[in-house]
Amino acid sequence: MTGARLKHYGWGREGEGMSAEERKFVLGRYRAKFATDEFDTIAVPGLDDLSLREPRVAPPASLAPFCTTDRYDRAAHTYGKSYPDYVRAMLGDYNCAPDVVAYPRNEAEISAVMDWSGAVGASLTPFGGGSSVCGGVEPRVDGIKHKAAVTLDLRNLSKVVEVDPVSRAASIEGGTYGPSLENQLKPHGFTLRHFPQSFEFSTLGGWIATRSGGHFASLHTHIDDFVESLRVVTPVGVLETRRLPGSGAGPSPDRLFIGSEGTLGVISRAWMRLQPRPSFRAGASVRFPSFFDAARAVRAVAQAGLYPSNCRILDPQEAFNTGAADGSAAIMVLAFESGDHPLDTWMARALECCADHCGTPEPAKASDAHLQGAAGIWRNAFIRMPYAREFLTPAGLINDTFETAITWDQFENLHDKVKAATERAILDATGVKGEVTCRFTHIYPDGPAPYFSFHALGRHGALLEQWQAIKNAASDALIGAGGTITHHHAVGRDHRPWYDQQRPLLFAAALRGAKRELDPQGMLNPGVLIDP
Amino acid sequence: MTGARLKHYGWGREGEGMSAEERKFVLGRYRAKFATDEFDTIAVPGLDDLSLREPRVAPPASLAPFCTTDRYDRAAHTYGKSYPDYVRAMLGDYNCAPDVVAYPRNEAEISAVMDWSGAVGASLTPFGGGSSVCGGVEPRVDGIKHKAAVTLDLRNLSKVVEVDPVSRAASIEGGTYGPSLENQLKPHGFTLRHFPQSFEFSTLGGWIATRSGGHFASLHTHIDDFVESLRVVTPVGVLETRRLPGSGAGPSPDRLFIGSEGTLGVISRAWMRLQPRPSFRAGASVRFPSFFDAARAVRAVAQAGLYPSNCRILDPQEAFNTGAADGSAAIMVLAFESGDHPLDTWMARALECCADHCGTPEPAKASDAHLQGAAGIWRNAFIRMPYAREFLTPAGLINDTFETAITWDQFENLHDKVKAATERAILDATGVKGEVTCRFTHIYPDGPAPYFSFHALGRHGALLEQWQAIKNAASDALIGAGGTITHHHAVGRDHRPWYDQQRPLLFAAALRGAKRELDPQGMLNPGVLIDP
Repeated sequence: MTGARLKHYGWGREGEGMSAEERKFVLGRYRAKFATDEFDTIAVPGLDDLSLREPRVAPPASLAPFCTTDRYDRAAHTYGKSYPDYVRAMLGDYNCAPDVVAYPRNEAEISAVMDWSGAVGASLTPFGGGSSVCGGVEPRVDGIKHKAAVTLDLRNLSKVVEVDPVSRAASIEGGTYGPSLENQLKPHGFTLRHFPQSFEFSTLGGWIATRSGGHFASLHTHIDDFVESLRVVTPVGVLETRRLPGSGAGPSPDRLFIGSEGTLGVISRAWMRLQPRPSFRAGASVRFPSFFDAARAVRAVAQAGLYPSNCRILDPQEAFNTGAADGSAAIMVLAFESGDHPLDTWMARALECCADHCGTPEPAKASDAHLQGAAGIWRNAFIRMPYAREFLTPAGLINDTFETAITWDQFENLHDKVKAATERAILDATGVKGEVTCRFTHIYPDGPAPYFSFHALGRHGALLEQWQAIKNAASDALIGAGGTITHHHAVGRDHRPWYDQQRPLLFAAALRGAKRELDPQGMLNPGVLIDP
Repeated sequence: MTGARLKHYGWGREGEGMSAEERKFVLGRYRAKFATDEFDTIAVPGLDDLSLREPRVAPPASLAPFCTTDRYDRAAHTYGKSYPDYVRAMLGDYNCAPDVVAYPRNEAEISAVMDWSGAVGASLTPFGGGSSVCGGVEPRVDGIKHKAAVTLDLRNLSKVVEVDPVSRAASIEGGTYGPSLENQLKPHGFTLRHFPQSFEFSTLGGWIATRSGGHFASLHTHIDDFVESLRVVTPVGVLETRRLPGSGAGPSPDRLFIGSEGTLGVISRAWMRLQPRPSFRAGASVRFPSFFDAARAVRAVAQAGLYPSNCRILDPQEAFNTGAADGSAAIMVLAFESGDHPLDTWMARALECCADHCGTPEPAKASDAHLQGAAGIWRNAFIRMPYAREFLTPAGLINDTFETAITWDQFENLHDKVKAATERAILDATGVKGEVTCRFTHIYPDGPAPYFSFHALGRHGALLEQWQAIKNAASDALIGAGGTITHHHAVGRDHRPWYDQQRPLLFAAALRGAKRELDPQGMLNPGVLIDP
């Protein structure tokens, strides 16, 4: 990581944010939506205004060189980037601040922090970039079993250690941020090609621990599929899995740690499968009369075995909100890319699938269509959007997103049920009609990953309760309609009640049995995924 | 299952086997290899000649309707199809025969058998088709912790329960054999498209429990990738995972059971992703001057993102042994297939990759090339080969196969080390020069799955020791060179010593922790994957 330090409140680094023009566009949409000229806006306390409890533990001399109890570090590691995180930070509630933040520089220092945390009865929260939108990095201790909270920030494990150009794989440290990772791979002609929306402010270890989904729509886009082997530091020792392109030897050890959200160990290093940098691209924006027409075209493309790099669809309102269309049509952002061969045949067949479902391509030059037209506008909005929450929250606006996956046979039912339940909950909770829109982020032959955004006009003093009521209704509807509580945001603390409904009880028991072996004191992220 | 019953010794059903002509071809190759006219051949005892111990337990009345202690059933469930299995069966050693074989018809009956086995202190061995080539179905009890052995044959759970044509998925019972599964899917226009060599005599549940690899070379061919959700009966209850095309909610529950080899529960049902029946095919046989030239072409194809349905290569000797070539060239069996689109573009680019590495296509009509020429001959030999062992073993011949996966950077080293170590071990163990050949079965962007066959002239009275010495040398070399002890055959009892070297110790601990929760008495396949 280079440059200014990360904000303790807000997205990205200090000094960064939306331009005046971008703010105007975003707020303009909300003014129109809620037919109001001004929002009741409150001030966010500065770092120096925060009152943090005295640290309950102090690191011993041997750990002091890479540990801190400084105000900034503790504040910047209290929250992730979820909506309730922003509200509580805006209200100056830093009750959950860690007592100590450790920045280990190697596995031995991670182990040393674990040993010390165990000795003083502290919980330990692994921290990558802190971009969790589901309460994944907040240290929450009960004061009984765990008497203090230590956060383990992996940013100093930030190297691409080795590149194997023959097998196209690299050994990369867990705390490596997205841009640094790509910069280190670039001279070798490779890319990890994993670009979650949080790319700039998240790390390889975080992606693996949360089963991150990349920007690409199909085939290998989940971080799960890129993992060739892992090194994991647990409180009882370090384990390393073998570098293998495939194996049938027992249950996959990697898959136990992928998605373990810091409850079983800390991912210190991984061999990751790489891609060549793409040299061929084909892209298009396609208009559809309705979202469900577009969805049927997506199903046809997904089941055709074409594997587009992008095949997102936006419903008409979502396309309008991002400025990608006028609200009268659904939009598909379609793209193929390859480091090996031209893609005309692939694109031609995909456009036939679209035409079968009333899809009309927008005219664009094939080579850079992904940067042009509706696709380009949407792409830019997508990357910039996380910067909006830091001023929307103080304006009393509730905007959030949630995502799921569902088989095709159940998709339309889930979509309608979830949209209706969320709209109703917004009206019930706020007294004002809100808005719920949907897009697809990832597609599979057996179903899509729908991604919902919602917008509500909240009321200061009640924002947390209002958000929670909406979140509950949306999540109940998701789970009731057969979806998953998260497709790529992870479980964290926010999704735990619905994860408990979705995840078989006996699997929780198995996970608890595994955790008891690897983390006998239960210090790692207590309460995340399973009860102690 | 329909037709004649399965052999208690040999491959397939009673009355089936190689034709006189096939036997002549196979034995002819061995006569030439070992420069001998006749082999010292002994007789295999018939079913009635076997001496089986008295059953140590008898099923209670409530289980009697679907349990048996009959001679045939016990003998037919003593062994799988590994080389040492054949030797011991040939020698009349049925010491490990189960005391009782249960054929439950539903999950309640599976649970009832588990309860009873727990009560009488019996071990429980789940049994699909019994085609294990690594000691995966042999009940081995110590007489102390486990006083008897019960085998649970799932063949009566054999239905395709539901087909979802929209999402292209089906709910299928775990005991469904390959041909029955495909026959039930066919009227719906779908296929599971999973064709392991054991296809006819293995079951869906067995494929999932052992991480079976299908016939297809790339992309979705491992059974792992087809599983949408699972139902598993454990000694403490039934669990069911949610049908989802993708999810980021915690570690994948399915992946814990995929590859668990019957140690955590019995897979009673699964929702599986289906494929359309292919309507487009392109195929070719390509000749290469050497196996490593062919391997470099495979790497190019795999890394190009073309995803051939077949991209096997045979070394010159392997091609000769199957009659596919004259021994002067390595052969690639290359094919693409799709239910959606013509494949000329894909094939043309793959052939360019081959040409870059001195590959010359054999002339053939594109549409049925997979049934013609070298490819067709090899394909037929592949399917028929398992029938050979039942007469090769009594002839004192040792023929076996083993498989692995390795990253590309290490492949040539592994190949040479393993081949040399195995050849040396054959000479040391038998005093006669043997033969070791190699092909690829599956390919990945980061490495191949090499598959070795070896042939040795053994000596009656020493076959087990000779085989074990060769197996040890080959496995030590595999593990020493960085490979996996199994890519798709599974661990079973035969691979356990090398699995222990490959699998992180702490993962074994985690697995033990999980097993204690799901199988507190440790009745399920004791000694498989982990110690109790």
